Amino acid sequence: MSQTSASADAIAACRTQLESQLEKLRAMNSEQAAASAVRPEVALLQSLTDQLAELSVERSKKNASKFTLKTPKGTRDWDPLSMALRKHVFTTIERIFATHGAVTIDTPVFELKEILSGKYGEDSKLIYDLQDQGGELCSLRYDLTVPFARFVAMNPTEYGSIKRYHIAKVYRRDQPAMSKGRFREFYQCDLDIAGTYDAMVPDAECLCVVTEALDALGIEGFTIKVNHRKLLDAIFAICGVPEDKIRSISSAVDKLDKSPWSEVRREMVEDKNLAETSADQIGEYVQLHGGRDLLAKLQQDAKLTQNPRAVEGLQDMELLFQYLDVYKVMDRISFDLSLARGLDYYTGLIYEVVTAASAPPGFKEGEAPVKSKKKKDDDEIDESTVGVGSIAAGGRYDNLVGMFSNSKKPDAVPCVGISIGVERVFSILMQRIKEAQAKGERTAVRQKEVEVFVMSMGDGLLLERMQVCKMLWDNGIKAEFLYKKKPKLQAQFAVVDKEQVPFAVLLAPGEWGEGKVRVKQQLGKEEGGNDKGEEVPLADLCRYLKEKRDA
Amino acid sequence: MSQTSASADAIAACRTQLESQLEKLRAMNSEQAAASAVRPEVALLQSLTDQLAELSVERSKKNASKFTLKTPKGTRDWDPLSMALRKHVFTTIERIFATHGAVTIDTPVFELKEILSGKYGEDSKLIYDLQDQGGELCSLRYDLTVPFARFVAMNPTEYGSIKRYHIAKVYRRDQPAMSKGRFREFYQCDLDIAGTYDAMVPDAECLCVVTEALDALGIEGFTIKVNHRKLLDAIFAICGVPEDKIRSISSAVDKLDKSPWSEVRREMVEDKNLAETSADQIGEYVQLHGGRDLLAKLQQDAKLTQNPRAVEGLQDMELLFQYLDVYKVMDRISFDLSLARGLDYYTGLIYEVVTAASAPPGFKEGEAPVKSKKKKDDDEIDESTVGVGSIAAGGRYDNLVGMFSNSKKPDAVPCVGISIGVERVFSILMQRIKEAQAKGERTAVRQKEVEVFVMSMGDGLLLERMQVCKMLWDNGIKAEFLYKKKPKLQAQFAVVDKEQVPFAVLLAPGEWGEGKVRVKQQLGKEEGGNDKGEEVPLADLCRYLKEKRDA
Repeated sequence: MSQTSASADAIAACRTQLESQLEKLRAMNSEQAAASAVRPEVALLQSLTDQLAELSVERSKKNASKFTLKTPKGTRDWDPLSMALRKHVFTTIERIFATHGAVTIDTPVFELKEILSGKYGEDSKLIYDLQDQGGELCSLRYDLTVPFARFVAMNPTEYGSIKRYHIAKVYRRDQPAMSKGRFREFYQCDLDIAGTYDAMVPDAECLCVVTEALDALGIEGFTIKVNHRKLLDAIFAICGVPEDKIRSISSAVDKLDKSPWSEVRREMVEDKNLAETSADQIGEYVQLHGGRDLLAKLQQDAKLTQNPRAVEGLQDMELLFQYLDVYKVMDRISFDLSLARGLDYYTGLIYEVVTAASAPPGFKEGEAPVKSKKKKDDDEIDESTVGVGSIAAGGRYDNLVGMFSNSKKPDAVPCVGISIGVERVFSILMQRIKEAQAKGERTAVRQKEVEVFVMSMGDGLLLERMQVCKMLWDNGIKAEFLYKKKPKLQAQFAVVDKEQVPFAVLLAPGEWGEGKVRVKQQLGKEEGGNDKGEEVPLADLCRYLKEKRDA
Repeated sequence: MSQTSASADAIAACRTQLESQLEKLRAMNSEQAAASAVRPEVALLQSLTDQLAELSVERSKKNASKFTLKTPKGTRDWDPLSMALRKHVFTTIERIFATHGAVTIDTPVFELKEILSGKYGEDSKLIYDLQDQGGELCSLRYDLTVPFARFVAMNPTEYGSIKRYHIAKVYRRDQPAMSKGRFREFYQCDLDIAGTYDAMVPDAECLCVVTEALDALGIEGFTIKVNHRKLLDAIFAICGVPEDKIRSISSAVDKLDKSPWSEVRREMVEDKNLAETSADQIGEYVQLHGGRDLLAKLQQDAKLTQNPRAVEGLQDMELLFQYLDVYKVMDRISFDLSLARGLDYYTGLIYEVVTAASAPPGFKEGEAPVKSKKKKDDDEIDESTVGVGSIAAGGRYDNLVGMFSNSKKPDAVPCVGISIGVERVFSILMQRIKEAQAKGERTAVRQKEVEVFVMSMGDGLLLERMQVCKMLWDNGIKAEFLYKKKPKLQAQFAVVDKEQVPFAVLLAPGEWGEGKVRVKQQLGKEEGGNDKGEEVPLADLCRYLKEKRDA
């Protein structure tokens, strides 16, 4: 009998016995005892598996061709140009947040597993767990909202009232569709205001902030859809939806931005067993959208004005619109009764910012995203197909912090927040950069910021190039030189051209002896570059370059 | 029989059978086949364990007092003040890096497990694995160097020659000693230069950069220890250390910064079976340190000058010192033959920057870190006990990229890098901030940057406060107001005082009617604040505030 079939037999026997044991465990009621007791077995088995895996890794290392050189599925590297853009986006958003007096916090990339459990409904299956290597069970953060609520609940005195932003990576074990911009590791960018304040004042500021941020980023033509959970729930109740079906009917309604009403109605009636009359009544409401006009119409609706929840919702919307007028945001607003938002924890105002700015040619709003002509693998990043859609979203969630604290009032720390879809912002702006590059235009974002390249003509002059660079560095002027003792002039100019370095400082033995260098400003042809450059005394070099640079 | 004992019996039976099966697996030679075949069993058992754990989490949620509100062991939240300091530190370092023409990249927080395997020697056990939830096996990154090498190997044409920095979190499943600043999640800050260049030119620039960065951060009194792996290995060979013992003897020598020579000698002779004569010969070399004088002395050493590796090392040091003279770094340098550095992958120059700047009173270099008077739990962060020690380190590693690429030349992409210990920098600077705060001094780093607080006297004037804030925000002036319809004047001034907001803009119904507001500059008593403030026309407010602010 061969080694391999011996292994196969042993493994088959192991599987049979394991399964029978697991069956017994499944049958038992004392899940908690079983869970903790079975853990050491798992850890043992896992550790053995790891040892075996380690051996096979060692073996495969010897055979280099077997080595897979890639990032894990659904993740990506950020190259220098992407990073320059990322920095530009974050700095812009942070400036707006700070202008509104927001502070920032950070939390660990993983949380205790129990902190995340029961917060994301059926999406909990997308949570990444760390391996149980002994000690606490941890999971990678799924969003920034739950860690924020945990942070506030842990520090109620100091941070029970806080306006904080947080820009960081989150993790979802989703089927990645990178061509649609869906990753397993991606950035979220959240601003949340926690604390007891007068109605709709912080809510209105969230919408003011997101408008200022998207404007500052140059995102054009966006619309802010708003709705109110209390109003929506009242509508469902009025239309005869049983209380326990409200969230499920709500999530059907939320699909109206992608599906026609007929399909949503079918889902309600056929899949969710809602009475046809209820569905039809709902249809009359949720297909409405507008602005102040819609609010006025609803304020005349006798069924709504007799429902306390609806009245609360309508009063909030009235206040909101008043505040948004002052903030000059009303012209972006669409009061849209079909907006429901997926997450369970919203308790009041909800909103979603949609844009058509990134639509590739021939791509219209409402259509499904079109694949680019060349068939792409799902694992390949293809920024061009990132289409229209949500670019920011959020709402009021008054009870989330209460889930973590021992306070008797679930809404002891009410919150409202906005999350800006920075990954989508990157895609839109990167597409613009690529388009500009294709046209040979200069782009606002450069991957490398070097201002001066120090080079030598003739004799190498390595120590002298180092000396000039050190002087420039000490004066805050960004400079480089070629790390060769005797570089060719051509090789040095190649760097200047490739990286579009604005200034070249040339050292020649004769001029250097007289304490002088030659400065050549690299200008586009239309700007008329000075071909031979200008002689500048070394002692004057920093002043000269700063003047030219800042001109 | 009770439910619990029934479970216990079933689990005991399960354990026995599992162990016998595992014994069979262990005995088999076909580890690779076994590893892949046993994986589904583990996954199944794991998934069941998770289901059970989920149930017990659900149960414990109903009993809120059982809920542990904390971050995972070895991790921490960053509060707004820490974040403001972190931003200051990163911005300062990034400015220096960019001045030297470095670009930045980012990599995923987890890598394929096989990428990290076999890179960290015995520290591999500290790698955090993600749970096997089907699909690829992944681990959290342990440092930024291996992901960098993987990135360069994946993009050899574009980035085979790159000067890049990366500031990001890394993960080590170490026993945390947060009182000593040892975390499981912490920042690394690396600058690396990859590419084929003339000897010691990029190496010298790394030491120039770290000096400029620590100077810019205000870290005083640091020393840069330098040594060379080739020289060190030659010394070991000359002293009769067998080739296969060189790394292990090297790591014993590396302890000379903490232990006396007698203890290191004992470890070599007793624990590592080195001949006493060899140990004594090593002792004569590795206790030497100095600068150019030491280099001159070694250049006269006949045993060294006859050893090709030693000659290479000495030539490199000669060049390095020449370059460091130009970069004005030589006065920081200590050529220290005891510096060995733990990591296997170094191939040339190695260095470590040590500082005594953060030493608490009564704490002298060379002593073990002293616990503060009050006994602290290891899980509690206590910045004050972070003592002297390494604040930056690095070296040349010419073969790491080759481990990932298929190139026949292992040093096809030679690299040199420096890692700045930013966590230690935080500790030192945070201690200074706390000391300044204790003395009531103003600190350079504020957690909140708000410049103006807009408040009302009398009638609430909520919409008017919003209008003024919106005007300020649109002009890039950082402003806030209290989110209440009719806030008390006292409550508003309390915010101004607590958060040290420089300007208060007061709205009063009468003045507002005349298009005016009142501006009160909050100055320290010694600066003589204007008690009643100044009346400013609303149309002039932004200009007025900018002038005062920038004065």
